[in-house]
Amino acid sequence: MTAASSLDTLFRPRSVAILGASDDPNRISGRPVRYLLEGGFKGDIYPVNPNRQTVQGLKSYPSLGTVPGVPDVVLIAVPAALTEASVVECIEKGVTGAVIFSAGYAESGEDGLKMQQRIGDIARAGGLRLLGPNCLGIFNPQIGFYGTFTQSLDREMPKPGPLGIVSQSGAYGSHIAYLARRRGLGINYWITTGNEVDVDVSESLEWMAVQPDIKVIMAYVEGVRDGERFRRALELAHNNRKPIVMMKVGRSEVGAKAASSHTASLAGSDAIYDALFKQYGVHRAVTTEEQLDVAYACARGIFPKNNKLGVVTLSGGAGVVISDAAERHGLDVAPMPAAAQVKLKALLPFASVENPVDTTAQALNDMSLLAKNIEVILDEGGYDALLGFFSTVPNTRTLSGPLKKAIEDGCARFPDRLIALSMVGDEDVVQAYEASGMLVFEDSDRAVLALAALTRFATAFDLAIDVEAIAAGVPIGDAPLSEFAAKALLGAAGIPFLSERLVSHAAAAGDAADAIGYPVVMKIVSPDIEHKTEIGGVLIAVTQRDDVIAGFATLIARANQHRPDAHIEGVLVAPMAKKGVETIIGVSRDPVFGPAVMFGLGGVHVEVLKDVTFRLAPFGLEEAHRMINEIRGRALLSGVRGAAASDIDALAQLLVDISRFAAAHRDDIETIDLNPVLVLAAGEGAVALDALVVPRAAVSS
Amino acid sequence: MTAASSLDTLFRPRSVAILGASDDPNRISGRPVRYLLEGGFKGDIYPVNPNRQTVQGLKSYPSLGTVPGVPDVVLIAVPAALTEASVVECIEKGVTGAVIFSAGYAESGEDGLKMQQRIGDIARAGGLRLLGPNCLGIFNPQIGFYGTFTQSLDREMPKPGPLGIVSQSGAYGSHIAYLARRRGLGINYWITTGNEVDVDVSESLEWMAVQPDIKVIMAYVEGVRDGERFRRALELAHNNRKPIVMMKVGRSEVGAKAASSHTASLAGSDAIYDALFKQYGVHRAVTTEEQLDVAYACARGIFPKNNKLGVVTLSGGAGVVISDAAERHGLDVAPMPAAAQVKLKALLPFASVENPVDTTAQALNDMSLLAKNIEVILDEGGYDALLGFFSTVPNTRTLSGPLKKAIEDGCARFPDRLIALSMVGDEDVVQAYEASGMLVFEDSDRAVLALAALTRFATAFDLAIDVEAIAAGVPIGDAPLSEFAAKALLGAAGIPFLSERLVSHAAAAGDAADAIGYPVVMKIVSPDIEHKTEIGGVLIAVTQRDDVIAGFATLIARANQHRPDAHIEGVLVAPMAKKGVETIIGVSRDPVFGPAVMFGLGGVHVEVLKDVTFRLAPFGLEEAHRMINEIRGRALLSGVRGAAASDIDALAQLLVDISRFAAAHRDDIETIDLNPVLVLAAGEGAVALDALVVPRAAVSS
Repeated sequence: MTAASSLDTLFRPRSVAILGASDDPNRISGRPVRYLLEGGFKGDIYPVNPNRQTVQGLKSYPSLGTVPGVPDVVLIAVPAALTEASVVECIEKGVTGAVIFSAGYAESGEDGLKMQQRIGDIARAGGLRLLGPNCLGIFNPQIGFYGTFTQSLDREMPKPGPLGIVSQSGAYGSHIAYLARRRGLGINYWITTGNEVDVDVSESLEWMAVQPDIKVIMAYVEGVRDGERFRRALELAHNNRKPIVMMKVGRSEVGAKAASSHTASLAGSDAIYDALFKQYGVHRAVTTEEQLDVAYACARGIFPKNNKLGVVTLSGGAGVVISDAAERHGLDVAPMPAAAQVKLKALLPFASVENPVDTTAQALNDMSLLAKNIEVILDEGGYDALLGFFSTVPNTRTLSGPLKKAIEDGCARFPDRLIALSMVGDEDVVQAYEASGMLVFEDSDRAVLALAALTRFATAFDLAIDVEAIAAGVPIGDAPLSEFAAKALLGAAGIPFLSERLVSHAAAAGDAADAIGYPVVMKIVSPDIEHKTEIGGVLIAVTQRDDVIAGFATLIARANQHRPDAHIEGVLVAPMAKKGVETIIGVSRDPVFGPAVMFGLGGVHVEVLKDVTFRLAPFGLEEAHRMINEIRGRALLSGVRGAAASDIDALAQLLVDISRFAAAHRDDIETIDLNPVLVLAAGEGAVALDALVVPRAAVSS
Repeated sequence: MTAASSLDTLFRPRSVAILGASDDPNRISGRPVRYLLEGGFKGDIYPVNPNRQTVQGLKSYPSLGTVPGVPDVVLIAVPAALTEASVVECIEKGVTGAVIFSAGYAESGEDGLKMQQRIGDIARAGGLRLLGPNCLGIFNPQIGFYGTFTQSLDREMPKPGPLGIVSQSGAYGSHIAYLARRRGLGINYWITTGNEVDVDVSESLEWMAVQPDIKVIMAYVEGVRDGERFRRALELAHNNRKPIVMMKVGRSEVGAKAASSHTASLAGSDAIYDALFKQYGVHRAVTTEEQLDVAYACARGIFPKNNKLGVVTLSGGAGVVISDAAERHGLDVAPMPAAAQVKLKALLPFASVENPVDTTAQALNDMSLLAKNIEVILDEGGYDALLGFFSTVPNTRTLSGPLKKAIEDGCARFPDRLIALSMVGDEDVVQAYEASGMLVFEDSDRAVLALAALTRFATAFDLAIDVEAIAAGVPIGDAPLSEFAAKALLGAAGIPFLSERLVSHAAAAGDAADAIGYPVVMKIVSPDIEHKTEIGGVLIAVTQRDDVIAGFATLIARANQHRPDAHIEGVLVAPMAKKGVETIIGVSRDPVFGPAVMFGLGGVHVEVLKDVTFRLAPFGLEEAHRMINEIRGRALLSGVRGAAASDIDALAQLLVDISRFAAAHRDDIETIDLNPVLVLAAGEGAVALDALVVPRAAVSS
């Protein structure tokens, strides 16, 4: 059974049975019946309770077996101890979808985990899709289906609308559903996945990503088990232009295994989630309020294509506050064209007309001036979004209506523009403005944040996701690789290195140096010696043949002295590197999402300042450029203090190539370190001076 | 007349006259009369309007002269053109305080500015204190005094309460007053200063800082003209433990003058405000919502002394969200002591008991368990603040009361603790919880931010402000200073330099080098050559006497070649510096606040990463340590990659010494650059290798 069809049934059942249904509408096992009745469920409801003739006025059935037909969904509202029997009952009846509410499974310890796994196995074998356990269920207000006992519906049922909500936490999912309703936002689909013995957040997102009646998806995620499917879901949502507003909580470090590599010790799954969300254009909200604000704005369905924000206010101070906020959130309060400023000045001689346009309270005396003002701003300013600050004026009964009409009149010719207001008003006042298509925020900063998020969605939707399926590469085996072997492997994948020669005796070293040209660098080569400098295994700036020959002996002697057991492959003779900016590129393997590429500037930038950025492999050139542009020390690559600008294009290509290599070896490479990667002057390329490849098996063994 | 007494009269008049009072209660000139009447002003109201017998039911006077007695405050509600005559009228009558509402002054151009200055001069000469022009006035709900025409009182008058509001913008001041009222926060004093021809934001803050009936001050500032007085006001508020919650908007660069120095080009007045607010313990709010939240929390009057936050929730998810927020805002969700965890586990076997304590919904079934739980957390957890997350439960009518009682019972023995709730509830529900002394926030992140701010206030209040009046130093004159002269000057002030010798002929250079010991550094010394390296004026690692003698000639020749007109003082011979961490310390003169000290790590840290911090001079050791701890690259001073830890104490002392020197020369030094300052290993000190002092006159000439 495909994901689509199973969740179709769970979200749109024609009949529902409730095992353990209580007659008390306030009990956990009574509430689903109550909600189905209050919500006007458009299908059949079958309470199952052997001790009663009726449940909340409905005929009660002694067992699932006695229910007529096969219910599309069974809500299992019995204690944990009885759940397994209920699952078996469902399968015997031929049911294909069930929800388990009760807790006491994986979250409560070893025994609970075993019980949960057993139930999962039984369900899978019997073709039964399970939601839960330890979840608050699922609802779909369009058909009045409430497979939930959440307290948060106690006072008022949700209304249908453009929101889809997926939450691993039942309580959080309920909380945001309640907040959404207070904000006037309807919900078409709501699902909480709990312990995820079967249906998980990835599948739920995948399902929501293809629903035409969802305009925006809100998600709460603590951790993802199926990284592949999660990525597919995000990609699907992106391709269908469905914004996802994500609350990803918790910061757990990547396990001790990954910490063995220098690169990986900087990673940590939270950075990987950040990378993922950037790559797929997901908005990661920091606070619940932000999550609601952005979802609310998305539901309007207008995503401004440029980041220019027009601002109209009744107060100079508010204009400054909004300008500060715009800079913080990445919107451009670009000035009005000169001709438009002249027009505005003619309308309102006291106004500031550059942008923010401060009409002063004068505009309130003749609302037609405000309308005309807004019309000029939208017509000539080049803004895809307009933010108006009207403070408490909409709540003054005399001015509220005329103000609304003036804004409507000013916007009438521009239905494609996003109009947002920062204003304080009672609920009915706010709703009236919203009914006219305006977004309403009390706080101007929250308005600006949401508008900036919409602009980023517009940009992200228009960019193709730079991901391509990469076939697995030839396995590299599980033996440790020497620097020379690592460079050969990566060099074949397109990673540029210096033209080096591996030699096995002193005279050959001299010949190699003669061929390369002086000065040269010499390094010991052994798969058993990871950190060469620590044993004096590197000689730099060797300027003549005699020194090269003596140096060969020195290196071999040092290796023998410090690591008598090491297998020595020889000595590497290499040219001295040119001047360039030192960067570090690494790959580490996230246990859930696979290989991730890290980029940062060399030295203290990575180690002390943690000025690094990540992306999941593979990715393309545009994404590589975004990585490079993200680091705080970016200006160092543009040339500072008279230095030449660096070859950014070559660096980006190197990032792409390493990401593709990492993706091809997602199963057999644990980490890669290219440290340093020297980025030369523009046009001269980038070159990795050292390479370390750690096979996956080498770590686990 | 002292500030205190003038503002006393403006805030607490016994009689008010309104020049140009309108009978129409909705007009600008009618609204003050209406508000005084509606607010139940406890003094005499004298409308002045020659065209009417009565104004809004009150007897109208034909002129100010005919009003009985001398009104304490006159509200000048006449057009700009008539204002000057009104000011003269006030003085003739012997009035000592007036408010000018009308716009059209400094903000509207050159003519307006002149008119404003003239009015200011007249008032000063006549002993009349003026508020405005271009302001929305002043109010004090305790006595029903409303010297304002703000629209925002249209629907409802404010109530008295613990808030003081000072705003340069009338519209912003009105906006936050309205928001405060919606939040249930009363206001005892409200003032908007507009164009500040006389009364300004500094004086207003100073006045509020000593009012016993203000618990928290909200301020909106665009720019300060009297830096000294502003600092005094902040100091007074700090010493009186009055929290200031500040919205400082706008980011204007320090002028072109200051940009002439390398240090100053990194400054900019906004960074100086940041420094100031840190030094005086002012909370700088980023958004209006944050400003309200923090002020609301301050009004409770409990400032947690430690930064440990106890968290109790009904949902694991919320606990994770709150833990993330606590880390972001600097609070410590410290675990419960083991013994307390055992007790909690006994109470609620399914609960998470470490902290966040997740009681699960189980606690709702027996509220006494929740009460007991909270009691144990407060009794044994060591938390000065407790945040409870209860989602929508308080809004479910059946549970709201019992939940409130359970929290009250749990907290009963701990009246000194701060109890905050994150919950969603209708206005009356929220008010009931607040009436029990709990802070209520809908969003948990906003709750955590506010609690963190309270904790920072508590810390700041307990720290003495590290500021001491520094007597002016001996004037340094206005001629440019050579490096040698600068070092002599700063050396006398305690700044450590290498033991260098200035020599004027080659043999003396050789002798100096012999005495210092090889290798040495040699530098050309001239007040006319600021950037020595650019002309080859520095020789490093000179290893023998012959080279020193030859080097002397080289340096003189280079100086003559590049700057034939330069006055050459000689050549400096100095020891090679030891290994250390390069830092940069600078002083620049802010036009408003005087000398500010900048600190950062050397090289790219300052120039590219802008990893710098500022403080206004002078300051003491604690503040210097805070500066050092603030930079992102701080770890470099703790020793990374095997390097020794740096001598932080010596660095801090150097910062203190330069700050005191800068304060003593606040009038005659424009900038100082110590670049680099080498911080040696712990115990070995810090030493400035170069010094540049630019006298103020040297810049302006």
